[in-house]
Amino acid sequence: MKKSTKILGLGAALSLLAVPAFAQETAEYTQFILNSLLFLIGGFLVFWMAAGFTMLEAGLVRSKNVTMQLTKNMALFSLAGIVYYLLGYNLMYPLGNWSIGTDGTGGYLGAFGVAVLEAVGVGPDGVDDLSYASTGSDFFFQLMFAAATASIVSGTLAERIKLWPFLIFTVILTGLIYPIQASWKWGGGFLDSQLGFLDFAGSTVVHSVGGWAALAGALVLGPRLGRYTKEGRVVPFPGSNLPLATLGTFILWMGWFGFNGGSQLAMGTIGDVADISRIFANTNTAAMGGALAALVATQLLYKKPDLTMILNGALAGLVSITAEPLTPTLGEATLIGAAGGVIVVFAVPFLDKLKIDDAVGAIPVHLFAGIWGTIAVLFTNPDATIKGQFLSIIIVGVFVFVVSYIVWTILKLTVGIRVSEEDEITGLDMAELGMEAYPDFTRS
Amino acid sequence: MKKSTKILGLGAALSLLAVPAFAQETAEYTQFILNSLLFLIGGFLVFWMAAGFTMLEAGLVRSKNVTMQLTKNMALFSLAGIVYYLLGYNLMYPLGNWSIGTDGTGGYLGAFGVAVLEAVGVGPDGVDDLSYASTGSDFFFQLMFAAATASIVSGTLAERIKLWPFLIFTVILTGLIYPIQASWKWGGGFLDSQLGFLDFAGSTVVHSVGGWAALAGALVLGPRLGRYTKEGRVVPFPGSNLPLATLGTFILWMGWFGFNGGSQLAMGTIGDVADISRIFANTNTAAMGGALAALVATQLLYKKPDLTMILNGALAGLVSITAEPLTPTLGEATLIGAAGGVIVVFAVPFLDKLKIDDAVGAIPVHLFAGIWGTIAVLFTNPDATIKGQFLSIIIVGVFVFVVSYIVWTILKLTVGIRVSEEDEITGLDMAELGMEAYPDFTRS
Amino acid sequence: MKKSTKILGLGAALSLLAVPAFAQETAEYTQFILNSLLFLIGGFLVFWMAAGFTMLEAGLVRSKNVTMQLTKNMALFSLAGIVYYLLGYNLMYPLGNWSIGTDGTGGYLGAFGVAVLEAVGVGPDGVDDLSYASTGSDFFFQLMFAAATASIVSGTLAERIKLWPFLIFTVILTGLIYPIQASWKWGGGFLDSQLGFLDFAGSTVVHSVGGWAALAGALVLGPRLGRYTKEGRVVPFPGSNLPLATLGTFILWMGWFGFNGGSQLAMGTIGDVADISRIFANTNTAAMGGALAALVATQLLYKKPDLTMILNGALAGLVSITAEPLTPTLGEATLIGAAGGVIVVFAVPFLDKLKIDDAVGAIPVHLFAGIWGTIAVLFTNPDATIKGQFLSIIIVGVFVFVVSYIVWTILKLTVGIRVSEEDEITGLDMAELGMEAYPDFTRS
Repeated sequence: MKKSTKILGLGAALSLLAVPAFAQETAEYTQFILNSLLFLIGGFLVFWMAAGFTMLEAGLVRSKNVTMQLTKNMALFSLAGIVYYLLGYNLMYPLGNWSIGTDGTGGYLGAFGVAVLEAVGVGPDGVDDLSYASTGSDFFFQLMFAAATASIVSGTLAERIKLWPFLIFTVILTGLIYPIQASWKWGGGFLDSQLGFLDFAGSTVVHSVGGWAALAGALVLGPRLGRYTKEGRVVPFPGSNLPLATLGTFILWMGWFGFNGGSQLAMGTIGDVADISRIFANTNTAAMGGALAALVATQLLYKKPDLTMILNGALAGLVSITAEPLTPTLGEATLIGAAGGVIVVFAVPFLDKLKIDDAVGAIPVHLFAGIWGTIAVLFTNPDATIKGQFLSIIIVGVFVFVVSYIVWTILKLTVGIRVSEEDEITGLDMAELGMEAYPDFTRS
Repeated sequence: MKKSTKILGLGAALSLLAVPAFAQETAEYTQFILNSLLFLIGGFLVFWMAAGFTMLEAGLVRSKNVTMQLTKNMALFSLAGIVYYLLGYNLMYPLGNWSIGTDGTGGYLGAFGVAVLEAVGVGPDGVDDLSYASTGSDFFFQLMFAAATASIVSGTLAERIKLWPFLIFTVILTGLIYPIQASWKWGGGFLDSQLGFLDFAGSTVVHSVGGWAALAGALVLGPRLGRYTKEGRVVPFPGSNLPLATLGTFILWMGWFGFNGGSQLAMGTIGDVADISRIFANTNTAAMGGALAALVATQLLYKKPDLTMILNGALAGLVSITAEPLTPTLGEATLIGAAGGVIVVFAVPFLDKLKIDDAVGAIPVHLFAGIWGTIAVLFTNPDATIKGQFLSIIIVGVFVFVVSYIVWTILKLTVGIRVSEEDEITGLDMAELGMEAYPDFTRS
Repeated sequence: MKKSTKILGLGAALSLLAVPAFAQETAEYTQFILNSLLFLIGGFLVFWMAAGFTMLEAGLVRSKNVTMQLTKNMALFSLAGIVYYLLGYNLMYPLGNWSIGTDGTGGYLGAFGVAVLEAVGVGPDGVDDLSYASTGSDFFFQLMFAAATASIVSGTLAERIKLWPFLIFTVILTGLIYPIQASWKWGGGFLDSQLGFLDFAGSTVVHSVGGWAALAGALVLGPRLGRYTKEGRVVPFPGSNLPLATLGTFILWMGWFGFNGGSQLAMGTIGDVADISRIFANTNTAAMGGALAALVATQLLYKKPDLTMILNGALAGLVSITAEPLTPTLGEATLIGAAGGVIVVFAVPFLDKLKIDDAVGAIPVHLFAGIWGTIAVLFTNPDATIKGQFLSIIIVGVFVFVVSYIVWTILKLTVGIRVSEEDEITGLDMAELGMEAYPDFTRS
């Protein structure tokens, strides 16, 4: 920890004529710092979502599969980050260097190459983009989005998928699928330039992508043993640790302030900070709306509030507001979130009716509410077009679902993606890892 | 995530004469941004306290009531936020538009109406108060305080109160009781203007309010079955998950930096940031003092340190410093917190002697230490007056306790507030919700 | 919460001649604010690490010792903070007032006296160092490092050490051992001035110090009963709650952004914020590298991934990058972290072979990876010298290990440091504290 003078080096005799430039430069520098700071704060908050997904999933699976779920989450997060560095970042943000397409015509495939940060102790002339933020802060922030996408998948496929094939899929998802489609919007690609698609922080670009990949996986993988009886009954597999699942939800909620707030991409002006404030308030109230809607809906439908629905309702509220957390009023944001909560309450049994087994409800939360949120942009942002929103939902959905389905199928046919029946009944923790999550407690 | 130039639009030929104004405006704008940023950071930290309360309470109740405690906390937080938006915010901060009273004579009842944020992309001329912070950031921050107040109540009444009546009380507490009394001090009402009451971040305005409401509820609701024997013995109901309770305490501690630090309300000057630094350091050391005092006190009294007392001691230290985290020295702050920790160690058995059953110790922590903290302002802040502090403690206490007592009584006489004896013995999780918190572990 | 005008008081008629000074001062003030803000954010993140250590340790010990581990962590953190205030801060940062030595010749023993913060509402003329940051923010940040050092020790010695002797050691560690050796580098002492030792955020100064103290304790205290059989077999004592241990790891990972990022010590220039961004990105990728390396290594060695190794691998990655998180590229940082992860996988069984019983693996993570990280500075920072790095590792190691060993031995010979055999078998929770961590669950 060095300690040295940090003040801008100023010539001792600052001439009067230099003043305008000095004042203006100072303003510019301060904005660069504040923009970068937004990414750093936003980034550690989105990082925190990795812990949220992990706790949520560990709480919602049965105790015999908890160690595996923890292992998967640690591994996928770490892998996603490194793959995003090696491949994803420049695929997603080619800065004009498209492999296929151009900024003008609309890009389709970004640039290949590892991420490179600015040099140590860089000055105003050395930064990549003085009007934006430091590349390191941007990279740090964006990396967390790629990892979040992968986290979504691990929940759905819990309790029966093999570790290593899952990790191979994670590499493809975070290194290719996610960044390529993200470049179409956030890298300035064709969805952005040709369709005017609006997705502020990723209801589609992040959440539905994770959801589509999870859906493809669930179809190829099949439901957990004993989940659906021959008579068509759905056997509940209650989560083993609801405080943990609740903690995970709170963590995700907290992280979402960084997810949506950081996506303003700037904090150096009054307008930007006021916008971030709106985003924070709207993001929060959408989660509240989602939680309350699920509370009321389950009370009405089942005569009993259902905590796991309330948790997923809050998350669905968050996903729903993510495509446009800025333009809604507080009331509108609450309603958008509440609709997301209602979607979850109906979508969970709907998927079960189709025998699509989603261990934690990630498809309703991230895919269905993600689509809803992307459509809801139309209600509050006049710049959104029906064509731009719907076409983009479809294009991204088809791309991600088809590619994911193919990859899952190849994995299934080659290395295999599912543990043996015996191992599944024993539980992945003892069968695959030889390590119980709660060795002192579980009934044996 | 749009990416565009964020620099203040400057005329290409910035004339020399415009410089003073430009430099001054830049300074003003930067202060607005930093003030807003303080609220955003403070806000997500206080948000995090909702998770802290939830984990603390889930850890301190018996395993058969954990799902209910989680459900209550998720629901109360969500409800509090929406009610605060609909009603609380303008009741608390009428900005001069008092329904009863004026800023001059002292206000008694604030304004009615929903909260309205600044427009999207607002400029310096469009913000509500350029010398303060963005309204969205202030709303986000203040909302979390209302929710924290409600969280306090849920702990005390755990393990026997019905969900829906509790939520009705939450609506009244966060929509009316809390904001009305808060307006008396923080909205510039009569406690502030007439009595010169000092309560920096809410030892009285937040914590004792939650505590009074909890006390009224505990009296109307009665103790848990089997808690006090006819022979006058207190039966311990040990918390089911102490790591969770400890985690909750750490989360609350962390959130308190936002709670107290954010209450400086500004970060744009050297004086403000140095003050926030003092507040962070003092808040931290008060918690440390409270924890250590409880450790030593339980060792001396019972020959064994008591972890739940240590946790509550830390929290009591935090509550104690909240009325004045700025003026004490580090040593004084440590002692103020330590006194809070000692209060808890004596108050918990004292309440039991009175057969007032507080499932988590929230009344000692938030009410007793809250009163102590409000009095302690007199020792370090020369602006505090004995009359101002004591009278305000009494006025707020009487108002909140009486109104709460009436509301609880009405709820008791109408919808009923207590679950059946049978349900209480079974546990609220299975009886009311049909969902165990730890289905794989609990002895059955 | 006062609400008042926060804008710099400006004379109404700001003369043109005052402009240069005004613009320059504003820039200076903004930098002071941003530097202080870095410490405040960094500080609450490093605070959060206390929760991380607590959860990690509570998850890795057996359920019969969990309450004790929670109690120890709450107590040590609180004690460390108060001792650091009373003694540590000025010993560590004598600001030239060395008790032995001078800045010029190299200081050896800092100043004695309690920490004193700047006055309330201080102006630019009243701050201790306008070119740095507010003293309160610096104190807050530095205090958390002292506490982290003590946290490392508690893990290693878990499940058999007595509470109070452990706390006495904590006082000596955080009040004397840690700050004295830290002053040699970060206070400008002889390791810094004479040897040019480089340790950016404390691979040696914090982590190896905790590790050496833990190693000394483990040797004096001996292994847990039944851990090593006479036949030389190592009996696994599986951690009782792996989700908790995983949560602890994520918390530590998150806190590390503050730990390393805050150690840049300034955020007021473009160069500083870009550097902090590099540090965040590098810190993160090193943890990812460590986790993945441990995943792959355990898969290859044991044919099964080992979650506790993966967790410790991530932590070892973090420790490894701590001595130099700034100069490496992303690729280098990943490899430095990965090497840390591999070290852990080999070091854990190696320690067991020596019958050195480390309940949570803190010695491999903090000592071995700490040494590795300090050496790794040589690969990426041209200012590092082989002599400076190795000699400093040895000097700090010898000092901390020898003094710790003596203190542990004195404690052993006087008050005793180990619980009785019977108590150890029963578990410290019931034997020493009379309070189970999970009373509703544990098999009895």
